[in-house]
Amino acid sequence: MSAHTSRLTEHNIDPDILTRWSPRAFTDDSMPEKDLLTILEAARWAPSAFNAQPWHFIYARRGGADWGDFVDLLAPFNKDWAQHSAALIFIASQTTRANSKGEKSPSRSHAFDAGAAWGLLALQATKLGWRAHGMAGLDHERAIVRLGLPEDWRIEIAVAIGREGDSSSLAESLRAREVPSQRKPLAEIASEGRFSA
Amino acid sequence: MSAHTSRLTEHNIDPDILTRWSPRAFTDDSMPEKDLLTILEAARWAPSAFNAQPWHFIYARRGGADWGDFVDLLAPFNKDWAQHSAALIFIASQTTRANSKGEKSPSRSHAFDAGAAWGLLALQATKLGWRAHGMAGLDHERAIVRLGLPEDWRIEIAVAIGREGDSSSLAESLRAREVPSQRKPLAEIASEGRFSA
Repeated sequence: MSAHTSRLTEHNIDPDILTRWSPRAFTDDSMPEKDLLTILEAARWAPSAFNAQPWHFIYARRGGADWGDFVDLLAPFNKDWAQHSAALIFIASQTTRANSKGEKSPSRSHAFDAGAAWGLLALQATKLGWRAHGMAGLDHERAIVRLGLPEDWRIEIAVAIGREGDSSSLAESLRAREVPSQRKPLAEIASEGRFSA
Repeated sequence: MSAHTSRLTEHNIDPDILTRWSPRAFTDDSMPEKDLLTILEAARWAPSAFNAQPWHFIYARRGGADWGDFVDLLAPFNKDWAQHSAALIFIASQTTRANSKGEKSPSRSHAFDAGAAWGLLALQATKLGWRAHGMAGLDHERAIVRLGLPEDWRIEIAVAIGREGDSSSLAESLRAREVPSQRKPLAEIASEGRFSA
């Protein structure tokens, strides 16, 4: 039985949306550049306010020159398992938006827009047989310097992409958590006419 | 020729990610509740930091008791065309997160996480033959009151969902813009090792 079959829906959605999940056990595989670029291509076509596309994806592949540095920018807890993934991506968003005269002002939607791109990125990875796991835990200060982020950009998350491995490869403390997570009932996150949780 | 064929990619992605776009011409169709709930179900399975799911979807369907009010919360520019859609959804995100003791602190990722849910929502709408158009332009102050949003929630965007109509139904000023938008080249939004735009 595949782990994701524990997820039940009332409504039939795209199967890859349901089976997408964020494992920690990866197989130490490498990833063809073509697959990585296809995954980023999906993010490219996300919608954004004013089509501003306020996102940037900075990546390293296992075996490449940047790999060790990228692993080292993660929080120790994430480093332990994410070092076995095939690619690491830092997703950054631009916190300002320029008007037609090139004058910048704070953007209200940069994080939300970059999130939409991330949703499609994770789905496309799933469709290619990879798994993508987003991580909030990273060393922002060091990452900003190492990645050369301009002043008006911020890092949203890091993402590990790899082939799903066997949970027995994980530290014991993580093994029991290695199942697709559940969700709040639809009635708790959606309501007609008024907010109601 | 379908409008979206103007979009070219170097890498073969899920066709619905590429053909998803945000028209303004809608057909005045109504939407079965089943379709709307299926679209929201897709959003439900999005990833989020700590699986916090900091999102809420408040909706109205054409013909329902809330429809007129919802249309009226949009910016006038959006009201003109979005009134012909079949459903309106306000996407809200929770700006705080509670720890295991129930103590709330500011969330860093609420907008990004809600954006991921929006990306999957828009894609699922596409897969069911609907079009979803996100709108930044709305009356936030009035919407917060009308929708009964708690203090630590904010509205990210409003979304109009409908059947794609003919651009001839639009005001003349909008007709020429009624084509799927292009994107920055992949090389401008993705780079290896370091930020490079």
